[in-house]
Amino acid sequence: MNAEIIAVGSELLLGQIVNTNARFISKQLASIGTNVFYHTVVGDNPTRLQQAIAVAEGRSNLIIFTGGLGPTKDDLTKETIAKHLGKELEFDQAALDSISQYFIRTNRVMTENNKKQALVLADSTVLPNDNGMAPGMLLTTNTHRYMLLPGPPKEMEPMFLHYALPLLQKEPDVSETIVSRVLRFFGIGEAALETKIEDLIDAQSNPTIAPLASDGEVTLRLTAKHQQTDVANELINETEEKIRTRVGEFFYGYNETSLMNELFTLLQKNDLTIACAESLTGGMFQQELTAIPGSSAVVKGGVVCYTNDVKEKVLGVKKETLEKYGAVSEECARELAENVASLLNADIGISFTGVAGPGAVEEKPVGTVYIGISKKGSPVKVEKFLFAGTREGNRVRSVKYGCFSLINSLKD
Amino acid sequence: MNAEIIAVGSELLLGQIVNTNARFISKQLASIGTNVFYHTVVGDNPTRLQQAIAVAEGRSNLIIFTGGLGPTKDDLTKETIAKHLGKELEFDQAALDSISQYFIRTNRVMTENNKKQALVLADSTVLPNDNGMAPGMLLTTNTHRYMLLPGPPKEMEPMFLHYALPLLQKEPDVSETIVSRVLRFFGIGEAALETKIEDLIDAQSNPTIAPLASDGEVTLRLTAKHQQTDVANELINETEEKIRTRVGEFFYGYNETSLMNELFTLLQKNDLTIACAESLTGGMFQQELTAIPGSSAVVKGGVVCYTNDVKEKVLGVKKETLEKYGAVSEECARELAENVASLLNADIGISFTGVAGPGAVEEKPVGTVYIGISKKGSPVKVEKFLFAGTREGNRVRSVKYGCFSLINSLKD
Repeated sequence: MNAEIIAVGSELLLGQIVNTNARFISKQLASIGTNVFYHTVVGDNPTRLQQAIAVAEGRSNLIIFTGGLGPTKDDLTKETIAKHLGKELEFDQAALDSISQYFIRTNRVMTENNKKQALVLADSTVLPNDNGMAPGMLLTTNTHRYMLLPGPPKEMEPMFLHYALPLLQKEPDVSETIVSRVLRFFGIGEAALETKIEDLIDAQSNPTIAPLASDGEVTLRLTAKHQQTDVANELINETEEKIRTRVGEFFYGYNETSLMNELFTLLQKNDLTIACAESLTGGMFQQELTAIPGSSAVVKGGVVCYTNDVKEKVLGVKKETLEKYGAVSEECARELAENVASLLNADIGISFTGVAGPGAVEEKPVGTVYIGISKKGSPVKVEKFLFAGTREGNRVRSVKYGCFSLINSLKD
Repeated sequence: MNAEIIAVGSELLLGQIVNTNARFISKQLASIGTNVFYHTVVGDNPTRLQQAIAVAEGRSNLIIFTGGLGPTKDDLTKETIAKHLGKELEFDQAALDSISQYFIRTNRVMTENNKKQALVLADSTVLPNDNGMAPGMLLTTNTHRYMLLPGPPKEMEPMFLHYALPLLQKEPDVSETIVSRVLRFFGIGEAALETKIEDLIDAQSNPTIAPLASDGEVTLRLTAKHQQTDVANELINETEEKIRTRVGEFFYGYNETSLMNELFTLLQKNDLTIACAESLTGGMFQQELTAIPGSSAVVKGGVVCYTNDVKEKVLGVKKETLEKYGAVSEECARELAENVASLLNADIGISFTGVAGPGAVEEKPVGTVYIGISKKGSPVKVEKFLFAGTREGNRVRSVKYGCFSLINSLKD
């Protein structure tokens, strides 16, 4: 069964809203092993919608429509499909009842055009709408399946989970389950990572291996198909092991996690507190860490030491250090990490000092960054980086590398 | 000119990511009066991509592709288009240089498959990528325009704004100039603002008035069409004046500015320095302010005082204050604002203390926030808020309201 999702609505083509419905439905279909080969968005225009249907019929046998089931004049999805397939629209009593009950519940007066929402395609299976008025439909012909769903996610999503998905799973040709696992890597580029596992990618079949780069990180999505979920998982385990023996040093977590989340979990597990001295990152590290609920258990706080004045007076960086080496230096990063930890009485101190850009500082080129990590009982470790991004890019990379270095030194 | 946007990437069809690129591009094209009639999403599959191109050519004359320009084997967009149009791929020296420079700057080894990113379609106009490696392209034939853009929004969006849009605006069949101006409001809800200018919205024709709510702000986009730009601008001026006489107190800026940008400009203009004490916001205010190039001229720095310990020991909040009123109190906010300004020797001190959530603190409900503003020579002003958002929502609102209050008190 090859699916295509057609979202109907001019607001999508005007960029007023994002097509989250296509994403939701695609995710759900993947979970039952149904391939989605196309998404299409078309406006509230019967002619263009009819053309889109014809195109979809030529390349997909499950066509899922979202949107255009509302009460207003520009909601024409089922009317257009009915005309296209030569089907009648007939009143569905159950839908009509639930619509009038909805108006009673909300103490509102039902208008005539609301009745229009109770019209369904003849011979279709009706999907109840527990969160709105427009019912969904599934119409099966010899060649295609047409599913009509409402546009608002709060109506469509529960309808899809509770009524549409079970119907589709009953379909004879839905047999396999798809299991996906995302491996997250940091500190290696997409191209470099792919080069290291090129043979595995070339040989991929089940599971498939899909690399994706974003925000300076690379992920590999492993997707396996099998009738039994545990076998699919086993297939993924084997491939993950092969991959991690090659590039394990850059691996940091699974699926929806982030570097900051991994760091937080480690700090919590080891019952460690942290303090931070941020110059070029201006508070970014701390605001990301404190965005995590429960972070107050590990975060003491920190200082945004944007000027030398603050580095010296608040964080006690030696005047000589600033004069001799400058604020953007290994020595300054070391003192900042050490001093912020002792000032705030934290187990760990981390410091960021560097040149975010656009201009050079102390004749040090844009992108020069020193990150200092001070752990109680061990000597301060300072790493130097040279980033090549925008001002914001350099700040983000600094924070991510700070997380990554700290994660690794906590794992040791 | 009728546009179609084709996003290429299996991760979209798996529901791994949402197609925000189609939304962004649609919005931009709308602003220059170009119709978008279709969005299509297709996977990293040359055969299906070629079919999607053929379908698009039959119904649109501007076809914009996003994604599939990366270095890896499954990035096949330009290869497929080249084959489809019978065009060669040739190395673009500028792109090749910027890629190799990127690797030199970052002390990383360039792999062979990175070179592939410097290949462009013969006879195409190359769009520079200021935030990544893959260049964009615009290829014009007698019948169609093909634009290729990278997939990552961080690369695509600036490329589209700085290089693609100006090219498209030069196209002969974009006759009328469309002038847009966005008015930004804060501290008033979308519905309330609409009610106050309902008659203007109902009577709108040229310019049109489009309200949009996002991130606790409301914007009105005024869009006027005319052959002469200055006439279009005059039409917008008249409408803006009408609107601002009604809701001027909530207006804070134009177009792509932000509350933080407006604040920075005011501080700079008045030659004032600022220091910040952040509890619940955990550094968010400072990291947003320091994200602005040149902010070092006004930012002294600040303290993330996440624990009472830090509030007391580093920022000198009185023990009695914390015991009697608690950290989430008007008194604490006042001392924090005053003390951070004197500690860092800044003209202005601003403080944030409150309950971000999920749990209550000091029996104060989630969303309780105190913001203190201390200006040299005037008494500290503390405002209390009760926000009803998520943990992150409450932090974001705190920062925005802090900006807005400070902007207004600086304007006085």
